[in-house]
Amino acid sequence: MRPHVVVNVAVSADGKLSTFERRQVRISGQADFRRVDRLKAGMDAVMVGIGTVLADDPSLTVKDPALITAREAAGRPPHPIRVVVDSNGRCPPEATVFHRGPGQRVVAVSKACPPERRATLGEYATVIVAGDERVDLAALLERLHAIGVERIMVEGGGTLIGALFEEGLVDELYVYIGNMIIGGADAPTLADGPGRSAARPFVRLQLAGMEPCEEGVLLHWRVKKGDESGFT
Amino acid sequence: MRPHVVVNVAVSADGKLSTFERRQVRISGQADFRRVDRLKAGMDAVMVGIGTVLADDPSLTVKDPALITAREAAGRPPHPIRVVVDSNGRCPPEATVFHRGPGQRVVAVSKACPPERRATLGEYATVIVAGDERVDLAALLERLHAIGVERIMVEGGGTLIGALFEEGLVDELYVYIGNMIIGGADAPTLADGPGRSAARPFVRLQLAGMEPCEEGVLLHWRVKKGDESGFT
Repeated sequence: MRPHVVVNVAVSADGKLSTFERRQVRISGQADFRRVDRLKAGMDAVMVGIGTVLADDPSLTVKDPALITAREAAGRPPHPIRVVVDSNGRCPPEATVFHRGPGQRVVAVSKACPPERRATLGEYATVIVAGDERVDLAALLERLHAIGVERIMVEGGGTLIGALFEEGLVDELYVYIGNMIIGGADAPTLADGPGRSAARPFVRLQLAGMEPCEEGVLLHWRVKKGDESGFT
Repeated sequence: MRPHVVVNVAVSADGKLSTFERRQVRISGQADFRRVDRLKAGMDAVMVGIGTVLADDPSLTVKDPALITAREAAGRPPHPIRVVVDSNGRCPPEATVFHRGPGQRVVAVSKACPPERRATLGEYATVIVAGDERVDLAALLERLHAIGVERIMVEGGGTLIGALFEEGLVDELYVYIGNMIIGGADAPTLADGPGRSAARPFVRLQLAGMEPCEEGVLLHWRVKKGDESGFT
């Protein structure tokens, strides 16, 4: 058993998450920011890869006080559990995710993570060890489900999202497409990593929603399962 | 003076033109194929980069006989002028673009193209020399305008399209977004090349249309000009 996995990202019209320097770009505006905050407030956990922590230093908290109040009124913690996928334990102790707002943090490392880094991270977060060289994402999701995570949102980056798609671990995808061209063969995209060879069937999606939002477009896809996907 | 430049591409939901191996993927279906054929039939020229010729070997012809007949009835050639941007003259003489259907072909090379290759290409196409190491795209478009090209469609690949955006030479962009994840940090995207640094303003777009098409979505963007774009 694993949680329901929702990927949420904003990309440029040419499919980039940020510039080739991995400098964060304001792709969407306030209306989309509020949508993402509402989506996050409905989650048990929010997950990012270490590259996103190092590039953007996000807090991963719910921002709207009304949404936090509603969570607490329902007997839930103010923020979803914040999860960082960090195979080698590179997350710095001063990362904002460890310090802003109350609530549980999880850092997922592989067995390749040096013990001293694991010990340091343990001062700030629950450390889950899964996988030999890279975090075993399916095992991590099972472990998160076992501690009560039914719905998890993944906010990036492209390497983590690419791996989740590659392993069949995504259920829904929201893509906000902004009205700019960033460009660059080396700029991060929403599904990086090695990518699927043409020799294998692709992960298939079904369009669940499409709407203009500010100067861009919001697409909502569901991942097709089993026969629908072309997988056997 | 340059032609009106329309970029038309199909990408996966994660923004890829093809797999990391540059293997062509059927991203859209018959309805989108007919839309593209109609769009092409309204053009004076169709342009691709040499990478697209080497990977996909397209004919760049109009396919629907009714559209060809309509072009001829209007006193136009059956197919738009077919243009290959090929800085070093790598286009093979057996390329389908040189052999299928009647009509003018242009190969644009740089001064770095070896004279013997230029001579060979001259047996199959009008050779335009523009630029020192790379084809000077602005100069090429001016030369095409001078021979009567008022509207040109660019079908890829990502390197050519990225360069056109970078140089402010695109007016409209059609993106068909297909219902699959291809993935891959090295898979081609619609705007490759070096890409824009965060230190410079991005090319800005205005949404001109959005519609579901088969299992995907067709977006139509116009490039904002001057003050609108944030450029000064």
